[in-house]
Amino acid sequence: MSQSFVPVPVGSDFPLENLPYAVFSTKNNEAHRLCVAIGEHVLDLKAVAHLYPSAVQQSLQSETLNLLMSLGHEAWDIVRAETQKLLQKGSVLDQNLDLKAVAIVSQKEISLHLPAQIGDYTDFYSSIHHATNVGIMFRGAENALMPNWRHLPVGYHGRASSVVVSGTPIRRPLGQTLPDGAEKPIFGACKLLDFELEMAFFIGGPGNQLGESIPVDEAWKNVFGFTLMNDWSARDIQKWEYVPLGPFTAKNLGTTISPWVVPTAALKPFLLDNFPQQPEVLPYLRHSQPFNFDIQLQVSLKPANESETLISNSNFKHLYWTPLQQIAHHTVTGCNLRPGDLMASGTISGETADSYGSLLELCWRGTKTLDLQNGKSRKFLQDYDEVIIRGHCEKNGLRIGFGECVGQVLPAHPVQQ
Amino acid sequence: MSQSFVPVPVGSDFPLENLPYAVFSTKNNEAHRLCVAIGEHVLDLKAVAHLYPSAVQQSLQSETLNLLMSLGHEAWDIVRAETQKLLQKGSVLDQNLDLKAVAIVSQKEISLHLPAQIGDYTDFYSSIHHATNVGIMFRGAENALMPNWRHLPVGYHGRASSVVVSGTPIRRPLGQTLPDGAEKPIFGACKLLDFELEMAFFIGGPGNQLGESIPVDEAWKNVFGFTLMNDWSARDIQKWEYVPLGPFTAKNLGTTISPWVVPTAALKPFLLDNFPQQPEVLPYLRHSQPFNFDIQLQVSLKPANESETLISNSNFKHLYWTPLQQIAHHTVTGCNLRPGDLMASGTISGETADSYGSLLELCWRGTKTLDLQNGKSRKFLQDYDEVIIRGHCEKNGLRIGFGECVGQVLPAHPVQQ
Repeated sequence: MSQSFVPVPVGSDFPLENLPYAVFSTKNNEAHRLCVAIGEHVLDLKAVAHLYPSAVQQSLQSETLNLLMSLGHEAWDIVRAETQKLLQKGSVLDQNLDLKAVAIVSQKEISLHLPAQIGDYTDFYSSIHHATNVGIMFRGAENALMPNWRHLPVGYHGRASSVVVSGTPIRRPLGQTLPDGAEKPIFGACKLLDFELEMAFFIGGPGNQLGESIPVDEAWKNVFGFTLMNDWSARDIQKWEYVPLGPFTAKNLGTTISPWVVPTAALKPFLLDNFPQQPEVLPYLRHSQPFNFDIQLQVSLKPANESETLISNSNFKHLYWTPLQQIAHHTVTGCNLRPGDLMASGTISGETADSYGSLLELCWRGTKTLDLQNGKSRKFLQDYDEVIIRGHCEKNGLRIGFGECVGQVLPAHPVQQ
Repeated sequence: MSQSFVPVPVGSDFPLENLPYAVFSTKNNEAHRLCVAIGEHVLDLKAVAHLYPSAVQQSLQSETLNLLMSLGHEAWDIVRAETQKLLQKGSVLDQNLDLKAVAIVSQKEISLHLPAQIGDYTDFYSSIHHATNVGIMFRGAENALMPNWRHLPVGYHGRASSVVVSGTPIRRPLGQTLPDGAEKPIFGACKLLDFELEMAFFIGGPGNQLGESIPVDEAWKNVFGFTLMNDWSARDIQKWEYVPLGPFTAKNLGTTISPWVVPTAALKPFLLDNFPQQPEVLPYLRHSQPFNFDIQLQVSLKPANESETLISNSNFKHLYWTPLQQIAHHTVTGCNLRPGDLMASGTISGETADSYGSLLELCWRGTKTLDLQNGKSRKFLQDYDEVIIRGHCEKNGLRIGFGECVGQVLPAHPVQQ
């Protein structure tokens, strides 16, 4: 690919081959508008929308990505190709100095917002290592995986309102817990606050009608792009509340996503074989098309006024269930998906202890201690801790990055009686 | 209260004291607009919005109830009082024949739509009789209620996209089940399709910020009004999928609500003491204000080309947890509620077998048969069965009704291999 007229530093997450979408605003113009990242700048898509084919112009002038998502994969390809052309040296945009001065904005000058209006948010549980670890801790090694786990991508409906963009502080929750050995629950601040390393993808395409399902072989048309996610979890609250209907207040205290949505097309060079599945799944979940990706994922923990420590090295490729299987299963009973819906992977843990995607696993339910820099250590998150999730693909000199998904823990509100 | 110039037949659900909100359109004007029901007519609120105080006019010109919901209880009181005034004999509207001809529309001429854009939908599990019945069936009488059940209103996040308005057909789902005694799951049409008699309320007020909770004593400000609900359930699919994260594809095949949203103010004459709770709940869930209602609920089943049979007589008053407790618990860890969010009660079963709110309970997991008219019988729903839920309050000659929540079961799509 030729070079962009916008400089892309070595090691940047955002070369011309990436072009992740986001919603941004500036101090001078607080209106939310779409952009793509290029190097250390963004291209304001609203400012250049008139240079695109008329069928997609309106979607580029929107305040969220929902309309572009709804247009489907052919429109996404057109926008992507056109954007790559515009950003190349010598392009129409490169030669229009006035427009360029307006449309290319330094990332230092922007605020980033939620990329889409999320109609519904679903959280899967698709890492076999994570599900096994949790199973061993709570039910013992012999019953670690539930009988249904290898037959369907277990998932549940999450809370869309509490999905927030990277940088939003997360308040340590108050809630109800049952202390070990106690007969009655107590009320107070969560003691076992955790992160969960996840990735998520946004649904695109027109969506399906209620009562219809999306076949697994068609599901790729509905995967608009990917973000990083931290699914903050109150383990002590979760343990007491989750039987029989699943996690509720332990999860809806906040879920952080990265602002950048990396298009599925940008990940194609990093396709891998799907995770081997045994036993064979039912026909509605079978697909031969590879839809697994080599995305390296890192979690760092940064206590207040300290430097950060890398605490986990994981990878998207550890996921047992593919996004295509997740879509096929989600819609199998006729559930309608809408553009802007968010589908999360569940915690992504690898096989080895340094690749676990939560403190629950890294500290094995509080039985181990995680050493940080400068003599600090953790079993669960403390107030003012910052969790930083990063992700990138790298191969043959090409790096496609996801930026950062960051959140800081604020102290709980005092209990009012 | 004086009489309306719109005739209200004896036994109508919709006297001047009710004025439930809905979103409607007509053949001549397909734009969605707000109305209230009065007798066998509706008042088109967009057509008369200019007669209201300017602060609420825009909300009455909307395509959904969300903006009116967001304005808060003082605005709701103003709109309600003004609407009652307008509909009285001799009012400004009564005297304006041209406007009246446009603004008063027969219910025979309207189509009804979802009353609000539902940001998030939550389903509670708040009937102690229902939770006990299900517990006895699946875990035995001694462990019928989970240890947490009397300490917190158990609930889970539902799927907002699949909430549909009364009259929308429901497709029998395909899905994955584990037949009794089998080692491997199979794929096919749901065999144990059920209804669930529920009620739901819409969240109003500005909502709370993420990280803040709504105190139980303030929660009444967030209850805009109530609808009927049928939470269709695929019991065989649910049984196989729901451990450990709760119901997912067994419920997101469709959830039906009645088009009419009865304002909380209209239910005040029917307030009852709250359901007695033992043991005493934690302080954040305690409220002395009565927020329980005497709402009679009926379920009828109508096979294709047959007349309907009344199969359940229940009542909202059987709910153990109040809407105020549901709101306080939902937000206790900081989950933000938004106007238009929908909170459902869970299946409402009474103590006696004729008051159970699902076929699962009425036929006790398929061990009993429910007799219908003309020699028909059921254990679960059959294709083309129609389920009709009705509700009303009645006292001292005043009747406040909820209309109907209706849905018909369509046959499953053929399985494609």
